[in-house]
Amino acid sequence: MTEFELITALTARLPTNDFVVRGAGDDCAVLELGSPGTQTLLKTDAVVEGIHFLPETEPARVGHKALARALSDIAAMGGTPTAALISLGLPRQFDPQRIQELYRGLNRLAARYQVAVVGGETTTNPERLWISVTVLGTVPRGQALLRSGAKMGDALFVTGELGGSLLGKHLDFEPRLDEGRWLAESGRVHAMMDVSDGLAGDLGHLLTASGGLGADLWAAALPISPAAKEQARQSDLSKPARVAALSDGEDFELVFAVPPGQAVPLLDGWKARFPQVRLSCIGKITAEPGIRLRTEDGIRPLNMKGYEHFS
Amino acid sequence: MTEFELITALTARLPTNDFVVRGAGDDCAVLELGSPGTQTLLKTDAVVEGIHFLPETEPARVGHKALARALSDIAAMGGTPTAALISLGLPRQFDPQRIQELYRGLNRLAARYQVAVVGGETTTNPERLWISVTVLGTVPRGQALLRSGAKMGDALFVTGELGGSLLGKHLDFEPRLDEGRWLAESGRVHAMMDVSDGLAGDLGHLLTASGGLGADLWAAALPISPAAKEQARQSDLSKPARVAALSDGEDFELVFAVPPGQAVPLLDGWKARFPQVRLSCIGKITAEPGIRLRTEDGIRPLNMKGYEHFS
Repeated sequence: MTEFELITALTARLPTNDFVVRGAGDDCAVLELGSPGTQTLLKTDAVVEGIHFLPETEPARVGHKALARALSDIAAMGGTPTAALISLGLPRQFDPQRIQELYRGLNRLAARYQVAVVGGETTTNPERLWISVTVLGTVPRGQALLRSGAKMGDALFVTGELGGSLLGKHLDFEPRLDEGRWLAESGRVHAMMDVSDGLAGDLGHLLTASGGLGADLWAAALPISPAAKEQARQSDLSKPARVAALSDGEDFELVFAVPPGQAVPLLDGWKARFPQVRLSCIGKITAEPGIRLRTEDGIRPLNMKGYEHFS
Repeated sequence: MTEFELITALTARLPTNDFVVRGAGDDCAVLELGSPGTQTLLKTDAVVEGIHFLPETEPARVGHKALARALSDIAAMGGTPTAALISLGLPRQFDPQRIQELYRGLNRLAARYQVAVVGGETTTNPERLWISVTVLGTVPRGQALLRSGAKMGDALFVTGELGGSLLGKHLDFEPRLDEGRWLAESGRVHAMMDVSDGLAGDLGHLLTASGGLGADLWAAALPISPAAKEQARQSDLSKPARVAALSDGEDFELVFAVPPGQAVPLLDGWKARFPQVRLSCIGKITAEPGIRLRTEDGIRPLNMKGYEHFS
């Protein structure tokens, strides 16, 4: 049984109640807690030493990343973060200054978005530092952007640039909170999620959640980051930059679907509001399941890892 | 710098905002999210293999404990749990059936209290299983019972029996949710918290939060559990049962302070409502700081570990 199969089995039969608008399976849970105008978003996310950061990573960047990941999920719903809880697993020998630096990075990001850090707890994780962050956010009633609303013919957009995040962006990225909220308020977006595990794989989740649709992507339209190109240059063994843009994890950009007639007004509005942030129309939603990449050589199926299938 | 000093330093300068009624430093955070009648409670808590449970502990009991600990904190505020998020750190080689059993125990407890499990996430923690649980709850506006409201002269009560939890209760305890809510609704309670790190130490936190008050405890009134006595019998090296009742962790009972004139009506009401749950008046709040134990031999200061100081 793979981890994915395990998660599928576990989430198939979770207890629920009348407060739940959306449970497991989206970027955040959506709850209805009786506030007249708003719904509540809830997300938890962990970073682990040796997996999401290294022992020598500057601790302020680790703290930034730990919170930014969860904020990116709030952004992906079009929400506003309100409060965060931090759960720390400390190695037996820990350097207090390292933890204080970590909090400095985390608190600085929290303060920038008016997120209150309302507590948490500390326990022991003997071999490695563990930081688990829970974020509570709000979204105007009915405005939360789910993964499940994409429609056949929708135009697909992605913010920023993709690939090569490991060269630095994964530690320093800014969660797309302003952009996510603007998109939700625009009323033009059918479905949205954040790109955390690679565009090809994450888009696959959005298509599955939207009822088993597919997508055609245009290779020439993919916003390949300079880091993805740099990474490809560094070694002959690296994957090509385009594959990196389709498959590298930790981009923390937003991918979303809008009705075709809304694509141009949305792009115009975006350029006026976020002139410094690239927004790319990368393809369209199709009735035929699966993801395909259109290049100068034709159109071919993509796998979840962003590689083209050659038949 | 000790872990306690670190936490004090970290929590001294956390970002806050207008949504926060109570941040770090109580059993739960209390938030004001715009619901007319209720406030929101938020708590996160983790259990770690080798620390809070053993590799051979039945996984359903581990799942029960992981959720019950956080529910105990909701109980300590007088709240009602609504939703939970689970963050799992899986060792490299994990047994899927172990995780499914863990969820079975967790889900069973969640269903008993109508708590929705609304998602979470899975990552790798190579050496040991890690389970982090976040619980969101609600409490009628202004009814949350904080640690900080105790007054000089208040009678001190504790639910259930104390000590020896490691013999089994730490895995199987029932969070005192019905009792906590009943106490909050009674309007008679000044301050409350759950006893998770030993009565002497936790009561010390309540007294500090209430402005540096103290307490006199009556040794003969302490509800010493049969497990604490059994543990003391098992080995000459064990601490005496009374010390265990004052210091053993993971009791997950509630300790609370009520005005002296309310003590008898509260006890009467309790016996009618919870005839099967022991409630003990164990002492009183004093203006003089520190905790003292009154025995047949006189009155002596107690340290945080529940041992008496002999001068």
